[in-house]
Parts: sequence; C-alpha cells; structure tokens
Amino acid sequence: MRAIFIAVGSELLDRDRIDTNSLYVAKKLREKGILIDMKISVCDNLENLSWIVKNAYKRAQLLIITGGLGPTEDDLTRESVANALKKDLLFKESIVDEIRETFLKRGIRRMPEINKRQAFVIEGAEVLTNNIGTAPGLYIDDEICKVLLLPGPPIEMIPMFDKVFEEKIAPLSNFFIYTKSLKFSGITESETDSKIAEIYAKYKNPRTTILAAPGLIEVHLIGRSKKSIDEAQTLTDELAEKIKERMKDYILTEKDISFEELIVNELRSRQITLSVAESCTGGAFGNRITNIPGSSEIFLGGIIAYSNELKAKMLEVKEETLKKYGAVSKETAKEMAQGIRKKSGSDIGISITGIAGPGGATKGKPVGLVFMHLNSEKEDRGIYKIFPNNRNIVKTGAVNYSLNLIKKYLDDK
Amino acid sequence: MRAIFIAVGSELLDRDRIDTNSLYVAKKLREKGILIDMKISVCDNLENLSWIVKNAYKRAQLLIITGGLGPTEDDLTRESVANALKKDLLFKESIVDEIRETFLKRGIRRMPEINKRQAFVIEGAEVLTNNIGTAPGLYIDDEICKVLLLPGPPIEMIPMFDKVFEEKIAPLSNFFIYTKSLKFSGITESETDSKIAEIYAKYKNPRTTILAAPGLIEVHLIGRSKKSIDEAQTLTDELAEKIKERMKDYILTEKDISFEELIVNELRSRQITLSVAESCTGGAFGNRITNIPGSSEIFLGGIIAYSNELKAKMLEVKEETLKKYGAVSKETAKEMAQGIRKKSGSDIGISITGIAGPGGATKGKPVGLVFMHLNSEKEDRGIYKIFPNNRNIVKTGAVNYSLNLIKKYLDDK
Repeated sequence: MRAIFIAVGSELLDRDRIDTNSLYVAKKLREKGILIDMKISVCDNLENLSWIVKNAYKRAQLLIITGGLGPTEDDLTRESVANALKKDLLFKESIVDEIRETFLKRGIRRMPEINKRQAFVIEGAEVLTNNIGTAPGLYIDDEICKVLLLPGPPIEMIPMFDKVFEEKIAPLSNFFIYTKSLKFSGITESETDSKIAEIYAKYKNPRTTILAAPGLIEVHLIGRSKKSIDEAQTLTDELAEKIKERMKDYILTEKDISFEELIVNELRSRQITLSVAESCTGGAFGNRITNIPGSSEIFLGGIIAYSNELKAKMLEVKEETLKKYGAVSKETAKEMAQGIRKKSGSDIGISITGIAGPGGATKGKPVGLVFMHLNSEKEDRGIYKIFPNNRNIVKTGAVNYSLNLIKKYLDDK
Repeated sequence: MRAIFIAVGSELLDRDRIDTNSLYVAKKLREKGILIDMKISVCDNLENLSWIVKNAYKRAQLLIITGGLGPTEDDLTRESVANALKKDLLFKESIVDEIRETFLKRGIRRMPEINKRQAFVIEGAEVLTNNIGTAPGLYIDDEICKVLLLPGPPIEMIPMFDKVFEEKIAPLSNFFIYTKSLKFSGITESETDSKIAEIYAKYKNPRTTILAAPGLIEVHLIGRSKKSIDEAQTLTDELAEKIKERMKDYILTEKDISFEELIVNELRSRQITLSVAESCTGGAFGNRITNIPGSSEIFLGGIIAYSNELKAKMLEVKEETLKKYGAVSKETAKEMAQGIRKKSGSDIGISITGIAGPGGATKGKPVGLVFMHLNSEKEDRGIYKIFPNNRNIVKTGAVNYSLNLIKKYLDDK
C-alpha cells in the first residue's frame, strides 16, 4: 500500500509540528506494514496544494494531509482537496453546533463568525470530531485512494489519527513490518558497504539502508511479511546476523539507543567511573555524556583545557612534553588522560587533543588531526585520526572515536 | 519563479540533515525573492524518485535535489533524474581522477571500486566539484526548469550550493526580498508577542514571525518589493526599528549570527578572556563557545564539575558552602565562578549549577532550577531560573542565560 503524507503550512517555521506529526503517523503505519513513500511540506496556497493533492491522489492508496483546516483565509486544505478530487463542498449546520460547543467549553459565548468556514465538508466525506480544538477532520473512503484530512496541531492530530487509524486504516493492511538498526564504529561508510554489499544485495526483503555520521555508522533493516510479524522478524534477524558476523569487529549495539547512552549504560552496569580532558572538542564530549539521564552516577566531570597553559597547570602535562611534541601529540594526549584520571579519581580518564580548524595547522599536523587517549589504572591506549577540515565534523568525530575507545576497553575487559 | 526542493534519503532518519539543507537553501533563495513552494522527502527508491522528479520538473522552474549521490546501490538520484528527464548517463573518467584525489588526501591509496558509480554524469549536465567529499554535484541548465543535484551531507552541500547559487541561480530572479532577524534574550515568547503584536499586525509587508528557543527569541522580518532591494530594505528596517524600540531592554543583535558567535566576537574585540565551571550543563557551554572558529583567542577552558567532590577539589568551593547551601545554590555558583577564574587566570569566570532532571529534585529545589554566575576582578553577578522539566531545555536554556549574563556585563562595562 502506497502512502503519501502532506503537511500544509508555513514550510520554514512549523518544522517541529511537521516532524512530530509525520513521525507519529509513519511509526503507526509502519507497524502495520504501511510505509510512507513521500513526505511533502507545502505552503498554504490553493494552486500548489491542489496540484500536489491531485498528483498524490493519482499515485497513492492512502493520502494523509495535516494542517490548513483552521478558520482563517490561509486555511485552504478543504478547498484544495475538493478541487483536486472534483467534489463539492457542503455546509453542515451540525458542525457549527459542535464548534459553538467547543467555544462554550472555553468560556467563550459567541463563536467568531469566521469559524463557520470549518463547517464545510467535502461531498461524501465522513466528519471526524475534534475533542480538543475547533477544526473537524475528514475521512474520504475513496475506492482508489483513501484521503484523510487532519488538523495541524499534534495535540489535536494525534487522538484523531489514532481513532481513524484503528477503525479505518489498520484493517486495510494485509502485511507486517519488522525493523532493526545496527550501529557500528571504527569503520567508514564505504568500507562498510564494501564489506556487506554482497550480503544485503541478495535480499530484496529486508531492505537495507546505510547512514553515516563521523565515527558512527548505522545499518537499518526493514523486513516485510504478508503472513505475520514473526516472519518479518525472522527475515530481518537472519540478515542482521549475517551483517553482524561480517562486521563483528565494529559492532556497537542493535538497540535503538545513541552511542553515548550505550556507553553510559555499560559504565553504570559495571560501576566504572569516567572523567574527561578535552581540548579541541571544548566540552562536546561531556555534553554528549551528560545528555543521558543518570550519567551523573558514572561521570565525575572533566577539564576543558583549551589553552596550553591550562593543559600544563590543570592537567599536569609536563612543559617538556608540550615543548618537545606539541599540544597535539600522542604524548600530550597520554599525559592529559593520566592527569584527569588522577585529578578526578575516576576509573577511566579520556583525553582529546587536536586541531579543529579552520586555523591552527602546523608542519606535519594538518587541520583535522586529533589524538584520543584512554587511561585506566592498568593500561593506556591511544588512537589518532585525521578528520575532514570542518570544525563540526572534527568535534563530532573526535567524540565518537573517544566513545569507541571506551567501548573497546570495556569489550576487552 | 517556482522552486521545489527534494531531499532524497531515508525519510525518518535524516531529519537533521534534511532540515539543515532545506532551511539553508530556502533562506538563500528567499533573499533573492525565490520562494520554495514545496519541500519533499523521498526514500531512495528508483520508482518513487523518478515519479516525483518527473512531476516536479513539469511544474517548477527550479528543482533542487539533495542526497542520493553516494557510491552505494542505494544512491539512485542520478539514475532517477536521468530517467525522469529522459537523458542518458555518461561515464566521465576525469571525475574518477578527482575522486581518487580526494581519497589520497585522506591517506587512502586505493579508491574503492564502488566509488566509480559517482563518475556518471547526466547528459548535458555541468559537473560541480566537491572539495570535501567524493560525490560531485550536477547542474542542468534546462530551458524550462533548472535542475540542481547536490550531495546530502550539509558540509558538502553548502559550499557547492553557494557557488552555483551565486553564478547561476541568483541572476535568474527579478524580485527583491530583504530579511532581517532580531535576536532577544531575557524575555519569553508570549511576553514578546504581547509587546510587539500590535506593531507588526499593522504590516502585511514585511511578514513577521517569532521563533523561540529556551532563553533566546528570534523575530524574523521578510520585506518584499517588485521595484528594488532598497525598497524592500526600507520597509523592513522601518518595522525593525519599531520592534527594537519596544524591545530595547532585551535586544542581542540584528546580525545573522548565533548567540555564542556574538559573545565570542565581542570578547575578542575587547580582548577579554573567559573560562567556565559547568555542573548541570556538563560541557554544553564550552561546546557552544568552541563551535566558533577563533574562540581559542578568548576561551581558556574550564572545569566540568559534575560531582560535588570535584566542585570542592578542583574549584575550591568550600565544604561548608556545599553543606550549608547545597551544590545547587547561589552561594556555590558564586564560589565556582570565582574558583574557575582564579584557576584559569581568565578575566571572566562563568559558572552554571542546577538540576537537569529527571531525577535530583529536593525540597524547595525543583528539577529545572539553575543558578548562573559571572565573576570578574571587580564584580559578581548571579541569576537563577526555573526551566521546564526537560534535560535538553534545561541545558540549552542555562547556556543561553549564561551567555546573556556575559552580554549584560559587556553592555554595562
């Protein structure tokens, strides 16, 4: 079943609302095996809206349109859909009564005249009651393509969608979907693809997608079955196992959690405490870790030693080391990690020192060069990496590689 | 001029990337009077992609497609556009050389075989060099509709778009737009609206929009003119002046820069150095500051004192203070700021201590309570704020309020 989602409203400004609505709808539909092919944001404009509805209606079997059902002249969804489907708009007095009721509940006696616009119904559509706002929804049980018009505010959209989903849409689906997301680190996107392409290319089902961030790769699998959710899961798990086997040196998790959450969870379960000495990341590592609720159980804190003076003064990096090898070196990284562990009394000390750019490159040390180091009571392990010349990528990549240092350490322990 | 934006990729997963790209492109186009009619996200699927490209091509005069130019079998944008426009794909050896070069720069001698897929060019298209990644862009100077294919990662997309925008797209526009964004801090969204609604409601042109983040309000004005950019600017400036007058106690800047960039710039121009002691923000303040290139000139570093022990040990907060007032108190905040300034030798010390939640509330100290403090040689100033119970809002809000502490300090100086 082909589904298209259309969000009507100011394209640039209602981002959160559009995302909330489309993600909610997509997730619900996916559980019933209905995938959204396309998500479209369009401004309140009769011509644009009619055009896209007309085309989407020809292509899809399910068309979900949110927004543009308000009372103002900007709200053109009803007109556009009627236009596109060549249907009339009929005025329903009973809806006016319901809207009047909603205003009364809010303590407003006189319904504004403009709200009467919301009482127009597309010929043949079923009216969906709005228990929260004034905009009623509409459901058109068309033979070729079911069309659903829902209000824009998520608080009104969600309960209305839930109801119509259970009653009308879920029963239409005759197929099941199971999804799985595998996370990897320490490998690039193209290395990943060249390792696993020959495996997943054999499968039309599940469908495989690779997503890459600096220092973090995600492989998403979507399995489908016409028979049962169990079959969809079996298919997905089978491919997942093969990919995991091939990528076993790089696997992080198959849970739907972030890299930092994975690390915080593992440290918490083993009661290992952590501290960090950050130079080029400037606090980004601590920020990621402390985004996780409960991180305070294992994260003691750290030092942002952005200047060389602070590296020496606060982390006790030897002047000699800084002089001989420079602030961006494996030797300095090592002393930074040792220094922060000693200062904080944590079990593990992590350090990050590098050149975030755009300035700061020296001979033999290009922008993007970062040294990362882990120090524990019994061991030292360091890595370095040259990231592309982009401040954001360098910082994000350095944090992910540092998290991976901890992951490897915990795996080996 | 009718423009349509298409983002290719996994609809549910690349949200940030899609938003970054589409917002960036929309903003640039808007400045030249070109408004995006429709923003479409579509999965990597040949049939869907060809269908939407074919339709959009018929409707638009400018079609911007991002993503799906990678080397893997998932990457189908080239094929889909060729399909839709009924053009051939031609293999260009010179592109292979460029890609090989990119790999060499990263220290990889052997270009993976699959990257050859990126050397296919749509017949008649101009190749846009990618200086960062391997995916070249394409520009099709079609008579009816200009088609632009750009890579998905914003870091690659943005410089490529900038170049082609200046050279090819901007000259096509015949309508003028002037935008202005005013930033405010220390006031809420609804307070802002009640202060300025009666002013901006009088204007149909410019159009006014209020955007709110915790601790930061933006008022966007978009002025239009068919005559000249000067007329658009005059209209916009007139309204901007009225809003600034009404909001003069809260204004940060009317430049199109982030709050942290504003602060870094002001500190740099006055040669005032900064350090930070972060508790509940866990590095978020340092992270924001160090996102700005050149911040190392004024940001010395800081201490992330997540645990109480570190507050005492590393920042020299008195045991007595922690005991009597608690870690989340104006007294502890003051000693933290004094401590970090002393330790780092900076001109200003900032401290942040609070309860990010969801746990950690105590009697009289709810989740969301944060104390922020600024210490300089001659003065101490502190504020506190109770943010909503949401970790992300608490952290972001605390950073913005701390930046505002610095702003006010600099204004008074």
